[in-house]
Amino acid sequence: MKPSRSFASDNNAVVHPEVMEAIARVNQGHAVGYGDDPQTDSAVRKFREHFGERVEVFFVFNGTAANCLSLQALTQPYHAVLCSEISHIYTDECGAPERLTGCKLLPLAAAVGKLTVETVSHAYHGIGDQHHVQPKVISITQTTEMGTIYRTAEVEALSRFAHDRDMFLHMDGARISNAAVAQGLTLRQATRDLGVDVLSFGGTKNGVMGAEAVVFFRPQLARNFLFTRKQGMQLASKMRYLSVQMEALLTDDLWRRNAEHANRMAKLLEQEIKKIKNAKIVYPVEANGVFAKIPRDAVAKIQERYFFYVWNEEESVVRWMCSFDTTEEDVRQFAAFVRDGR
Amino acid sequence: MKPSRSFASDNNAVVHPEVMEAIARVNQGHAVGYGDDPQTDSAVRKFREHFGERVEVFFVFNGTAANCLSLQALTQPYHAVLCSEISHIYTDECGAPERLTGCKLLPLAAAVGKLTVETVSHAYHGIGDQHHVQPKVISITQTTEMGTIYRTAEVEALSRFAHDRDMFLHMDGARISNAAVAQGLTLRQATRDLGVDVLSFGGTKNGVMGAEAVVFFRPQLARNFLFTRKQGMQLASKMRYLSVQMEALLTDDLWRRNAEHANRMAKLLEQEIKKIKNAKIVYPVEANGVFAKIPRDAVAKIQERYFFYVWNEEESVVRWMCSFDTTEEDVRQFAAFVRDGR
Amino acid sequence: MKPSRSFASDNNAVVHPEVMEAIARVNQGHAVGYGDDPQTDSAVRKFREHFGERVEVFFVFNGTAANCLSLQALTQPYHAVLCSEISHIYTDECGAPERLTGCKLLPLAAAVGKLTVETVSHAYHGIGDQHHVQPKVISITQTTEMGTIYRTAEVEALSRFAHDRDMFLHMDGARISNAAVAQGLTLRQATRDLGVDVLSFGGTKNGVMGAEAVVFFRPQLARNFLFTRKQGMQLASKMRYLSVQMEALLTDDLWRRNAEHANRMAKLLEQEIKKIKNAKIVYPVEANGVFAKIPRDAVAKIQERYFFYVWNEEESVVRWMCSFDTTEEDVRQFAAFVRDGR
Amino acid sequence: MKPSRSFASDNNAVVHPEVMEAIARVNQGHAVGYGDDPQTDSAVRKFREHFGERVEVFFVFNGTAANCLSLQALTQPYHAVLCSEISHIYTDECGAPERLTGCKLLPLAAAVGKLTVETVSHAYHGIGDQHHVQPKVISITQTTEMGTIYRTAEVEALSRFAHDRDMFLHMDGARISNAAVAQGLTLRQATRDLGVDVLSFGGTKNGVMGAEAVVFFRPQLARNFLFTRKQGMQLASKMRYLSVQMEALLTDDLWRRNAEHANRMAKLLEQEIKKIKNAKIVYPVEANGVFAKIPRDAVAKIQERYFFYVWNEEESVVRWMCSFDTTEEDVRQFAAFVRDGR
Repeated sequence: MKPSRSFASDNNAVVHPEVMEAIARVNQGHAVGYGDDPQTDSAVRKFREHFGERVEVFFVFNGTAANCLSLQALTQPYHAVLCSEISHIYTDECGAPERLTGCKLLPLAAAVGKLTVETVSHAYHGIGDQHHVQPKVISITQTTEMGTIYRTAEVEALSRFAHDRDMFLHMDGARISNAAVAQGLTLRQATRDLGVDVLSFGGTKNGVMGAEAVVFFRPQLARNFLFTRKQGMQLASKMRYLSVQMEALLTDDLWRRNAEHANRMAKLLEQEIKKIKNAKIVYPVEANGVFAKIPRDAVAKIQERYFFYVWNEEESVVRWMCSFDTTEEDVRQFAAFVRDGR
Repeated sequence: MKPSRSFASDNNAVVHPEVMEAIARVNQGHAVGYGDDPQTDSAVRKFREHFGERVEVFFVFNGTAANCLSLQALTQPYHAVLCSEISHIYTDECGAPERLTGCKLLPLAAAVGKLTVETVSHAYHGIGDQHHVQPKVISITQTTEMGTIYRTAEVEALSRFAHDRDMFLHMDGARISNAAVAQGLTLRQATRDLGVDVLSFGGTKNGVMGAEAVVFFRPQLARNFLFTRKQGMQLASKMRYLSVQMEALLTDDLWRRNAEHANRMAKLLEQEIKKIKNAKIVYPVEANGVFAKIPRDAVAKIQERYFFYVWNEEESVVRWMCSFDTTEEDVRQFAAFVRDGR
Repeated sequence: MKPSRSFASDNNAVVHPEVMEAIARVNQGHAVGYGDDPQTDSAVRKFREHFGERVEVFFVFNGTAANCLSLQALTQPYHAVLCSEISHIYTDECGAPERLTGCKLLPLAAAVGKLTVETVSHAYHGIGDQHHVQPKVISITQTTEMGTIYRTAEVEALSRFAHDRDMFLHMDGARISNAAVAQGLTLRQATRDLGVDVLSFGGTKNGVMGAEAVVFFRPQLARNFLFTRKQGMQLASKMRYLSVQMEALLTDDLWRRNAEHANRMAKLLEQEIKKIKNAKIVYPVEANGVFAKIPRDAVAKIQERYFFYVWNEEESVVRWMCSFDTTEEDVRQFAAFVRDGR
Repeated sequence: MKPSRSFASDNNAVVHPEVMEAIARVNQGHAVGYGDDPQTDSAVRKFREHFGERVEVFFVFNGTAANCLSLQALTQPYHAVLCSEISHIYTDECGAPERLTGCKLLPLAAAVGKLTVETVSHAYHGIGDQHHVQPKVISITQTTEMGTIYRTAEVEALSRFAHDRDMFLHMDGARISNAAVAQGLTLRQATRDLGVDVLSFGGTKNGVMGAEAVVFFRPQLARNFLFTRKQGMQLASKMRYLSVQMEALLTDDLWRRNAEHANRMAKLLEQEIKKIKNAKIVYPVEANGVFAKIPRDAVAKIQERYFFYVWNEEESVVRWMCSFDTTEEDVRQFAAFVRDGR
């Protein structure tokens, strides 16, 4: 029998019971559509509790939209976005960022998934030259696509670099909760306080049903975002059902509990995998992802039972993600299967 | 005390309990993301039961997207979309259709909300002239924005007109269930059998939490829609939670029960309003919407207690929508308040 | 034998000899490309002589581009452009403005081709409403597509209306020279002094080979226009050959001489046509265009010899344009042919 | 005194006298606008003489447009274009291709400027995966941006690779004449016969004033190009003045004479530079460009007198282009100045 939970992605998980309850709770009476409802107000207030006053918050359906609309709010079509060559926005959005913004995304090499001031410096050129796209945004992913974490000083250095050049720092925070928790930081400390201008705050990979937030730390950048979101096809009519998910995530530290658990399961998985001959952990396990190099035939065999993605076909590196609903037993059974093939 | 339900819009309603239960039911174990899950397969099969074999179905988050992506699948940027000047796509999407498709929407006058062969004929010109956008799609809304219904012969005439000219017929079916029910038709009889090429099938206004479907009746039109949806920022990672909503709507005729009830409440409201001096029903009440002309000061007074939209400011016409959760008591209390101001 | 000159359009004319000579004059030695050449500097200075200090000028290839790029410089994709329903940008650009800017163009009724404060007021609504495109630009054509002219007070009223609402006034000046001359105004008096923010200054219809200018009267609006033009595929590498055309047009009042002549020929044509029974002038002849209603079979007969466009098929109204190279003899022969059919 | 001709770019050159004469010749009488004129017919026939029957030809203003509109004709927005990381379309168009087509351009490493089957194979992946842009076009530049030339077998291999995978081969032929001449090929042998699907045929860098052609070798690809060009703001009203330039270029082998001369001057320059200590030719001189590594201070010194571009700042490599109007004396004087600094 196939196991009920896999290690393919944190978005394969269920919806957390507290989120389900919150949805059920608001499911009574009529509410005005499109965000003019009490639940949305309340959810926005929750964001201000966590991120501080004067943040502007907009809920959207998914991470693609959170990222693309964030970038649109920061750019004109002749701008460039500097990002890692393995960033989700560069490799996994079917060209949505370019299509929506008109901008070019400049892919930069990124050891263990992270941009550095050095790499972005190299791509910062052609300023004022009409033939060249003009760098305007640095976009980083936290945690990175390789499961690693930008340290606070690293983010600060990038935001300083950006702001010194009239550029913005965008953070794709699909897994920002995992990164904050891993470093013992509050959400604000992990984002706003480091100079991030706009954050795609991830919910879907951390226990909600389907909701993300675009969080502006400089309100003037959000001035026209209502129109950008609507024209970007991301305005929910029954908004309360999105808002309440996000409110639940920020209530009683659910965001932290979920992320902590997922990170802990990844650590456990790392330990178990390390015991296995022929399996090698290839990137530091800093949050909820484990990347391992295993023999090609072993991959095929494990995939017969467990669904997951091969990260690098050529080098036979696989990606295993833990989520808030991963259990210790899930991990041990999986590791045993990896080890013994049964 | 304010009433818990208003007559502002069918998207102010709650989520139907059967939909909530269906969501709860799938909330266990991991599921592969992005649509490769059993619930999505099952939901698509349900659509084929209702609409017939060889339809292609794609779930998206909202009606704006269902419409815009449908149009993108049918057009090139130099094409024109013929639509009513009061159509939702023309007036209420903040320009999303033009922005996404690059096309021009040609607004046509439409008595009681309906395009006719005569009006579209008038707009069909400049064919082959490089200076002119080329008409490629007729888009109609069913039920119309005025609460009226295209009769089957009317839709057939428009699809014939379109197909004779290498054009497509798109139906914005945000309220197609209300239209089908009102005419005693199955969903297939109300759409595919009349020559509609692509349907935006509405769920959100008929009892689900937030989901719409793009339904292609000619599979070859859907060939690249996976990419169009993803690049259009409308691919849900936890897709099962969208799919199951739609499946529930098509199970045990929930779509029909909900729409029938809403339509019946509108009829009741019409009857009650007709008894009121100074209130005048201005469009035929054929589905779940009631449009009434009432004195300006009366509007203001009613809005103190009930939230709803003024349809035509100059003529003081208001729009009242009924939904699946509107009760007879809601209607009678509301009508009494309209009549007596208390 | 067919006549060598027709009355189809002022862009059917040749290149004025003074422009040809200017081109020949710069055709020696190498010049740096893309606008960093002495001829371009010199041409820009000419524009400043005519329009005053602190105007920013950019040369582009054609009128479509001058208009579309002007609008892009003034808008974001969720904005709306208010224009006449017969404006060139609305009817004759194959949707280029919408495609390039992402904006919706709102077509307004326009008696004798002119927008008024009243008509634009009517379209100015939905401000701040996320569902509605936000009006940002009023675009007027001078002379209008009907050959009429906005009076200075009319333009001023529109610019006041725009500026009071944080909007811009754009002028499609494909035939601005004809309008200025007809009113005895300098180019500056006919544009900048009336509150126009950005002007598409027409050259091609007034004797050059193919060149238009985008003229910004508020320099800050031009800040990023170098990039907008380049990304808009309108940056000429051998720019000197465009610049010198425009310089020639502004030298020794060639723009005025050409426009005056064309206007005078239209007046002559009007006089001749007025003598003809069965022909009726339908719009005031204020610049270089003559619109006449003539019997349908007469149209066909004249077109056997002379190429021109039918303006309104249903009403059998034709458009005849005069240009700088139209001669009195051309006019008299043509009028005679209209009258006698030979 | 500064020399009248530099080595900065072949677009710094004048217009060839035969082109000027051709323009003067058509400068009489009226001609219908937008391409319905005898000169355009005649120019298109010339293209068919050179490239064979059943090619479709469209004239546009510049190379940016020829490339971008070609790509638009071949793609949908979710497609990818494979190109060299130093290709003009990737580095020097201010993002115009992405903006116009919506596609992602995938930059590939390219030794001496050339793509190979091996490099494009590596980028051909993710087929059918909705998260990935779908490769649809391989775009090569002939001659390359490094002055090198794809051999016929190399082009054939790429076109075979493309066609085997339902992809297209686009050639940016800004300098296709130089490449054909260098290999002793006709224009057809250098393009169509090798499997190129669409060619941007360059005129501006080979002696005309400003005109390029988009040449379709498979007519069905051109079916809607009239609209694409117009909506792309590239339709000239006084088209005859573009057409006649291209006709002149293809008459009496002017394209060949100009390119041959430019190539010969580059060979001469190479010989002269090779004699200079401290100067090193870095790429094979196969057409009209010479790339040399010279000391940084020498660059500065030469640029005081001659304008040209530094190709690679870090490695102090400069680019010198020869054109049809470069004289032997120009070359010898320049080489002497490089050698002696006077």
